Amino acid sequence: MNLQNIRVVMIETTHPGNIGAGARAMKTMGLSNLALVRPQGYPCVEATARAAGADDILANAVVVDDLEAALEGCIFVMGTSARLRSLAWPVLGPREAAQKMGEESLSGEVALVFGTERTGLTNDEMARCHMLVNIPTNPDYSSLNVASAVQVLSYEMRMQSLNVGAAPLVDAPADDNHRTQPATSEQMEGYFEHLERLMAETGFSNPENPGRLMPRLRRLYNRARPTFEEVNILRGILTSAQKAYKQ
Amino acid sequence: MNLQNIRVVMIETTHPGNIGAGARAMKTMGLSNLALVRPQGYPCVEATARAAGADDILANAVVVDDLEAALEGCIFVMGTSARLRSLAWPVLGPREAAQKMGEESLSGEVALVFGTERTGLTNDEMARCHMLVNIPTNPDYSSLNVASAVQVLSYEMRMQSLNVGAAPLVDAPADDNHRTQPATSEQMEGYFEHLERLMAETGFSNPENPGRLMPRLRRLYNRARPTFEEVNILRGILTSAQKAYKQ
Repeated sequence: MNLQNIRVVMIETTHPGNIGAGARAMKTMGLSNLALVRPQGYPCVEATARAAGADDILANAVVVDDLEAALEGCIFVMGTSARLRSLAWPVLGPREAAQKMGEESLSGEVALVFGTERTGLTNDEMARCHMLVNIPTNPDYSSLNVASAVQVLSYEMRMQSLNVGAAPLVDAPADDNHRTQPATSEQMEGYFEHLERLMAETGFSNPENPGRLMPRLRRLYNRARPTFEEVNILRGILTSAQKAYKQ
Repeated sequence: MNLQNIRVVMIETTHPGNIGAGARAMKTMGLSNLALVRPQGYPCVEATARAAGADDILANAVVVDDLEAALEGCIFVMGTSARLRSLAWPVLGPREAAQKMGEESLSGEVALVFGTERTGLTNDEMARCHMLVNIPTNPDYSSLNVASAVQVLSYEMRMQSLNVGAAPLVDAPADDNHRTQPATSEQMEGYFEHLERLMAETGFSNPENPGRLMPRLRRLYNRARPTFEEVNILRGILTSAQKAYKQ
């Protein structure tokens, strides 16, 4: 576990106080990298007040317009979900999620993504995640505050970093060749855009009415965790097919 | 673990908002018994607001003048401590503490006691505890909010009540639709042959000298364990591209 490689991403947080409380929660557990996607009414006095001594986390937080920018450079993305969705997404408990984040953080930057207070992550946002984590709440009252969710998961990652539970870590990749490194979020986005283009050009998909095609394909490829080199091969195949039909 | 037998005791809480947030934290984790010792400025609008839908916990909370009254009827008392005190007190980690609380709660009511925000439990208050629990925080910033501490420990007790130790993955919701079943070996072979054909037709690969292209692609797709339906989508994309360049 490399806590420095963990990035917390909060999307469209409605109450700036939750951003401050989230920053404090992170810092108590040794996390420091925060990215905010379209935060509402931020910066604001309430955020700073709730951050208490964690205002350095806020000062260093990256504020961006979309999730893609927030995930720049990340090799692995874990989304948080309050519900067990109908989509067949891999969903871990908090402890297993922390273990997975710990393993991935040895290879590069990883993100833990929190949706907006009221509705959580959208389907499009989930489609950018490799896995989801669900905190098992009271079925009669599952209204976990978003900063509290940051607290619980940051806590689990700290416990993991202290090797509490003595869960075995997967060995770090032995190969330092960057071609065998996991593809970054940007590379994957590049591939998905390319694939989407080919599907539209060949009439396989209808850009006016895309349906659930891209989320399904994202889920499939994200499960495989392609390497840098594999994404190059996949894009080469697309380019080759495009050349063939554009002749 | 009997969550109904867990009583959370908050002593001289200075910010009523923390009481509300503590109540919410409890309820999300299935706890309901709260006792308040000399709460400052309580009841108050901020407490109710922060409680969100957990105002029933506040309405049922017992407000008392001293810790002794708050502990009435309890057979076991766990205190929370931000520091590892010099006193030779038994101090547990959160996970072990939850286990201990779980065991004791089978015999009767047990209390988890939180001191005031600034200074935590006094020596006199600690003297009423059988054991202490310490949440391992960042040594450079151990300023865990009291409601966040309630959240983390309530979470651990819930995990204990669910008997999460070696928790299995939560599988995606069971779907007996065959489309979501893993693709068979034959289906995967059909896809690989199709992909290989397209690569040869478009000049991406040289059938005379295929190199390691197919083994790499096989490895990639096998990692993803595609479903029946996903293989259909992948083959649909190939067919669509072929039609485009064969026109």
